[in-house]
Amino acid sequence: MAATDQASPAEPNSAEPAPAQSGTSRRRLLTGGALTAAGLTVGGALGASTASGLLTRNRGAEPAQQESPAPFGEERTAFYGTHQAGITEAPAAHAAFIAFTLKKDTDRDALARMMRIVTDDASRLTDGRAPLTDVEPELAADPSALTITIGFGPGFVERAGGAAPAWLKPLPAFEIDQLQDEFSGGDLLILVASDDPVALSHAQRAMLKSVRPFADLAWVQRGFRSARGAHDDGRTQRNLFGQVDGTVNPHPDEDAFDDLIWVKDGSWMNGGTSLVLRRIAMNMETWDEVDRPSREFSIGRRLDTGAPLTGTKEHDAPDYHAKTATGMPVIDDFSHMRRATSRSARERILRRPYNYDDAPLPGAESGSNTGLLFASYQADVLEQFLPIQQRLAEGDLLNTWTTPIGSAVFAIPPGCAADGFIGETLLS
Amino acid sequence: MAATDQASPAEPNSAEPAPAQSGTSRRRLLTGGALTAAGLTVGGALGASTASGLLTRNRGAEPAQQESPAPFGEERTAFYGTHQAGITEAPAAHAAFIAFTLKKDTDRDALARMMRIVTDDASRLTDGRAPLTDVEPELAADPSALTITIGFGPGFVERAGGAAPAWLKPLPAFEIDQLQDEFSGGDLLILVASDDPVALSHAQRAMLKSVRPFADLAWVQRGFRSARGAHDDGRTQRNLFGQVDGTVNPHPDEDAFDDLIWVKDGSWMNGGTSLVLRRIAMNMETWDEVDRPSREFSIGRRLDTGAPLTGTKEHDAPDYHAKTATGMPVIDDFSHMRRATSRSARERILRRPYNYDDAPLPGAESGSNTGLLFASYQADVLEQFLPIQQRLAEGDLLNTWTTPIGSAVFAIPPGCAADGFIGETLLS
Repeated sequence: MAATDQASPAEPNSAEPAPAQSGTSRRRLLTGGALTAAGLTVGGALGASTASGLLTRNRGAEPAQQESPAPFGEERTAFYGTHQAGITEAPAAHAAFIAFTLKKDTDRDALARMMRIVTDDASRLTDGRAPLTDVEPELAADPSALTITIGFGPGFVERAGGAAPAWLKPLPAFEIDQLQDEFSGGDLLILVASDDPVALSHAQRAMLKSVRPFADLAWVQRGFRSARGAHDDGRTQRNLFGQVDGTVNPHPDEDAFDDLIWVKDGSWMNGGTSLVLRRIAMNMETWDEVDRPSREFSIGRRLDTGAPLTGTKEHDAPDYHAKTATGMPVIDDFSHMRRATSRSARERILRRPYNYDDAPLPGAESGSNTGLLFASYQADVLEQFLPIQQRLAEGDLLNTWTTPIGSAVFAIPPGCAADGFIGETLLS
Repeated sequence: MAATDQASPAEPNSAEPAPAQSGTSRRRLLTGGALTAAGLTVGGALGASTASGLLTRNRGAEPAQQESPAPFGEERTAFYGTHQAGITEAPAAHAAFIAFTLKKDTDRDALARMMRIVTDDASRLTDGRAPLTDVEPELAADPSALTITIGFGPGFVERAGGAAPAWLKPLPAFEIDQLQDEFSGGDLLILVASDDPVALSHAQRAMLKSVRPFADLAWVQRGFRSARGAHDDGRTQRNLFGQVDGTVNPHPDEDAFDDLIWVKDGSWMNGGTSLVLRRIAMNMETWDEVDRPSREFSIGRRLDTGAPLTGTKEHDAPDYHAKTATGMPVIDDFSHMRRATSRSARERILRRPYNYDDAPLPGAESGSNTGLLFASYQADVLEQFLPIQQRLAEGDLLNTWTTPIGSAVFAIPPGCAADGFIGETLLS
């Protein structure tokens, strides 16, 4: 078994060397002044260490100034390019997936007008500049590596009179699904992501206004990862079940990476990709009743290190043939890791999951409204995502505590140059 | 007019020198190793500057390691002390206000049992250790300056058989209010705050479990401020209307600070304070229709700098006597700043507001579900908060675009020593 990936909350697994969380990095720009000034002072900011090995960190006015690393508010992610931004970069800490339903009278010409506006507004916002109609330029000034990524649902491509890729349709119904309309489908997706939730909120608002003449809001799903700066960048994050989540992903440095992510068929989607978004509710109440050995058995990995139950380190290759003293597989046949392990070199996806933890619904019995916004990018949903998902849907011990309640598939068209617009290959 | 403060979304105003956003700092502790190691490498992380003055920031595996400042995940805020933590420190980036309704059979003895458990769990979580019943110690390991602050509503004090402070009751009804039960009242408040939303979610979950045998969840309100590290620490934040929000606050270095914040009456509340929480919906749809001069007129401050309309810098003292060429006041009589300006040295509060931007309600006409969790601490609600609030309720131009939809008042009891528990002065 070679490379592995998976498609649901835990996503541990793999026989690959450790890829860092980050993806390609060419897009990130930072104005130099702030970094230089702050960088030079950091070395002098260490307080006096004590016998206990603890440092007192003063956050009063003066010491805080000395200690602060360079603020990342001004950091920008380039919008224009062969591919859209917000896909292969290191994921931002906060994301909003926003879906729209096209108005009835939004015809092909209107779609092109809308996409020119959306492109212009998104390119400005990600560059720290206000859209033309925005009277709050101050809120746009610190994008904090903001990205805005556009996706088309089946309805958009149909309205545009284009040929939809074979995979651009709702996923087949799975027995485990309890899908809700308020988290599913959509004609147009705008994915806004930033390391600062204030920058994200403003950009979300601005994009809502850009689209409003052409489409109605269908749903917004907000998610978060660990805050930027909380951990070393290379560390794999944990989801809210406490599992190390995201051990394996295709790495931009791999030869196979481009073929796994980008469509290369000469169509209007050339240079684009697909996004699968699944909202997976995690039942914290019943998960809380499960002890650690049972949790690890269900996943196939250790909770502390994320290592396969047959290994000692997170990125150790799992040994699916290993048996216990009583002759049972150490990694159970229905463990999440084994089910999610890809069966071919093509069955790999770029996972970009976000946690959600919304306010409990009024009157709900459960005190939690918690889960995962599972998001993955792949050149072909049917070849890469679907086989993994089918195995997980048919038998994954984690399904005991998880329920898919939302599902959507979007075509992410290629990027564009500064004189073009997102969707031009479909609409021009 | 001396010192000033206010009690609603914009909160510009003041004649005071610029206080930093941060409060007291004695509580913050950080394990030394990570800071030292990372701090030493930051100076070498500056990339090559280009002619355009931009630095390319690489976030690939290797460069990212070099650039990273010390991760703040391990940072702790001391739990035990004369006062509770989470009040006067620099506000964390993320907060969850969680309210509970006591179960009918939770008597005085049960309250004491609950508070011992809550205290033990909160002290562990804020120290990066899992509560006794927590099977996910890994999620507790990186508190990111987590604080957990406990408050008692009128129902709690009554159940305990204690004497409630005169101010511990719902605020009087204001004509502008459209309060909803799902955001109002409560017998017990647990305020969880952290610079990392993942740490916050886990702590919220753990505290829900601590309290569950004794009380039912009433509501959860989540809020955010700018991400830690996005801006210089001393910079005043903007709210989602784009206003500089929080220019004036009592500063811990002032002589008056302790008297403004801490109850000093020899009662069980000695060393405690009060929390007023108001959920203020901000109508983004109608605000979007207002041009900049009208916005500035409503607030009394400039949008770009936050300076009073009679000044040029954020912390300039406003001149309420200045007139325009036509004889009208430059700062309108009903501007938010003028209405919020305190009329006495006692009328001051410590504001700790958070933004909220939740998913739009299904079927709602508005594409926004946005506003402010206005939170303030003061020794006496009636003397300090109420006069400001009454002036704002009676006439504040900002009320055109804002609606209070939730309201709660809590007694924040004093802190405790490591062998005590929060609420011991009431329950022992």
